[in-house]
Amino acid sequence: MHPLSRRDFLAGSVAALAAARIQPATASSKTIGYCIVGLGRVSIGYFLPGLKYAPSARPVAIVSRDPRIAAIIARRYGIAPRHIYGYADFDRIADNREIDAVYIALPNALHAEYTIRAARAGKHVLCEKPMSAQVEQAERMVAACRSAGRKLMIAYRCQYEPATLRARQLVRAGRLGRPLVITARFGFDISPSFRLMGETRPEWRLQRALAGGGPLMDVGIYCLNASRFITGQEPAGIQAESSSQPGDPRFRQVEENLAWSMRFPSGLAAACATSYGVSLGESFELSGSRNASLRMDPAYGYASHRLQVTGGGAPLDFQPDFSGHRQFGAEAEHFARCILENRTPRSPGEEGLRDMRLIARIYAAARRT
Amino acid sequence: MHPLSRRDFLAGSVAALAAARIQPATASSKTIGYCIVGLGRVSIGYFLPGLKYAPSARPVAIVSRDPRIAAIIARRYGIAPRHIYGYADFDRIADNREIDAVYIALPNALHAEYTIRAARAGKHVLCEKPMSAQVEQAERMVAACRSAGRKLMIAYRCQYEPATLRARQLVRAGRLGRPLVITARFGFDISPSFRLMGETRPEWRLQRALAGGGPLMDVGIYCLNASRFITGQEPAGIQAESSSQPGDPRFRQVEENLAWSMRFPSGLAAACATSYGVSLGESFELSGSRNASLRMDPAYGYASHRLQVTGGGAPLDFQPDFSGHRQFGAEAEHFARCILENRTPRSPGEEGLRDMRLIARIYAAARRT
Repeated sequence: MHPLSRRDFLAGSVAALAAARIQPATASSKTIGYCIVGLGRVSIGYFLPGLKYAPSARPVAIVSRDPRIAAIIARRYGIAPRHIYGYADFDRIADNREIDAVYIALPNALHAEYTIRAARAGKHVLCEKPMSAQVEQAERMVAACRSAGRKLMIAYRCQYEPATLRARQLVRAGRLGRPLVITARFGFDISPSFRLMGETRPEWRLQRALAGGGPLMDVGIYCLNASRFITGQEPAGIQAESSSQPGDPRFRQVEENLAWSMRFPSGLAAACATSYGVSLGESFELSGSRNASLRMDPAYGYASHRLQVTGGGAPLDFQPDFSGHRQFGAEAEHFARCILENRTPRSPGEEGLRDMRLIARIYAAARRT
Repeated sequence: MHPLSRRDFLAGSVAALAAARIQPATASSKTIGYCIVGLGRVSIGYFLPGLKYAPSARPVAIVSRDPRIAAIIARRYGIAPRHIYGYADFDRIADNREIDAVYIALPNALHAEYTIRAARAGKHVLCEKPMSAQVEQAERMVAACRSAGRKLMIAYRCQYEPATLRARQLVRAGRLGRPLVITARFGFDISPSFRLMGETRPEWRLQRALAGGGPLMDVGIYCLNASRFITGQEPAGIQAESSSQPGDPRFRQVEENLAWSMRFPSGLAAACATSYGVSLGESFELSGSRNASLRMDPAYGYASHRLQVTGGGAPLDFQPDFSGHRQFGAEAEHFARCILENRTPRSPGEEGLRDMRLIARIYAAARRT
């Protein structure tokens, strides 16, 4: 489907390929048809263009409430007009045999409904993070996909990114010694509205009913997930404090700033911060008992991530050429291969559910004070 | 007293002088005689050599349990042998009119006893941080100095250091906008023993009875104090998680790692980390609503501190030549001038007591989970 992108892809660094565990599709491979559910900033700007880096995947359908934007995007990706759906006729995707999987990029509170409807329509589901707006929704998503016999993967992009994978491998191989302290931050100054395809829209991430929470749900979750993914440990204790500037209309419904502390059973402590009020950059630092440290910066966003390691051996400075589109391509490819080979994704629904439960604990801790 | 050092001092940068608010002593000035209580790493390595940068101060007496080391140090600083005291005859300092003030550099748990005895002996007290091992001790110290009519200052070295003072001034002038998020870390890999003047001694900082706690008491306190000092705000909510590697004999009595979160009433959140298990460097970062950030690194130790500011105006990179000895000299000078001019020190006992109460809340929060 993507001869040019296949060439681009194969030209990528061997290390990146190996780290991301992407296998180039063979000529005889079937490819997975994705239906894009929700045409917003992520699907238009990243997921769809990223598919050129997913040799086992191709876009075949669209679900959108906006016929104008849907028509533009469908034309851009050679999607047939009859494969454009609205939310009212969403369940008709069941009849479209070209659709193997859906990619859900809706506001958080809608993830559960459309994941469950997609599974019932017989489709596998790749759902954006955070998995949902509430724990109970995430539980229903896992149950629905299980009972429908469909795969569910949460789009933890970083878990398919070579620098993150390298960090995880080094930590688990003991390069830093025993992990002792994590500090991580991710925050930005959010606008009350955004532009999309010539239109101005209000920021749904500031509406509790749609987002379920503030920066923790949106960007803080990266710090949380990286802490778990890179160390392979689950937090045993969580405490948190959140704060908002009085009078800022953006933060009437969701928190502005949040700092949280975690304790892991092995003796690791983590201090994390997130914000919708100010850029905190996007860093992840882990220090271990060999007096060695790992720093990722940028660690989470759409620029190529960078991993630096000092102590415990020769210094390492690893920044694979793997920015946003390739990151989205890698996760789309992973899920496509899981479907083709009947494997469980690295970040299944249960992984998203774990974060949702931890996020609920963080919010509960912040409310307690 | 120190003609060479006076010249060194006057050669220092004007900015540093202004920031540290040190006024060169005039020829007619009286100087303050310090009695050094406790000859350990800090007093031998930093405070005493730092006095050459304190034109209004001079060392006049020593209290030590070790006659050999006391004799060496007395000779080095021209202190008369009759001005060397032991702890048994400590109260005799009352009779030494050359002693205006004591500098207390003992293990934390001994601060209260010797502060109170010094005040009763009619001496002003400059006491190392942390102020004490327990809140109740700190309260007694404040009360004893007040009732004796003697000044009490806690040796918050950074509050007399030009980069910290510049940071505080910029933040309070609104350069960053409203302070939103702080992240701060200070930690190191502690040895179970240390060398002093040719002897190996066990590390008292790992003994709960002497230290009162672990890295939070020793180095984490810098993150806490900087958060309060630079913003001028007091935390309203505090949460914490601490952790220790099982089996490490260093951490039988005190915590190894500690992460804590703070909320300030104005809408500021802070995420801090400290460790005795691994170096975390020594950084302080503050981001504000003008999408401007301040980073201090190094922020707390004996190297010259560095302040970098981005956003909210022209970038700033300020690293005054003001390493350890000058920092100790600046605080010794400040206290000497306060005594000479009958002023209240910038970091009085009440300031140390505030930190002690917050530290107790951090430990209580960490124990709760």
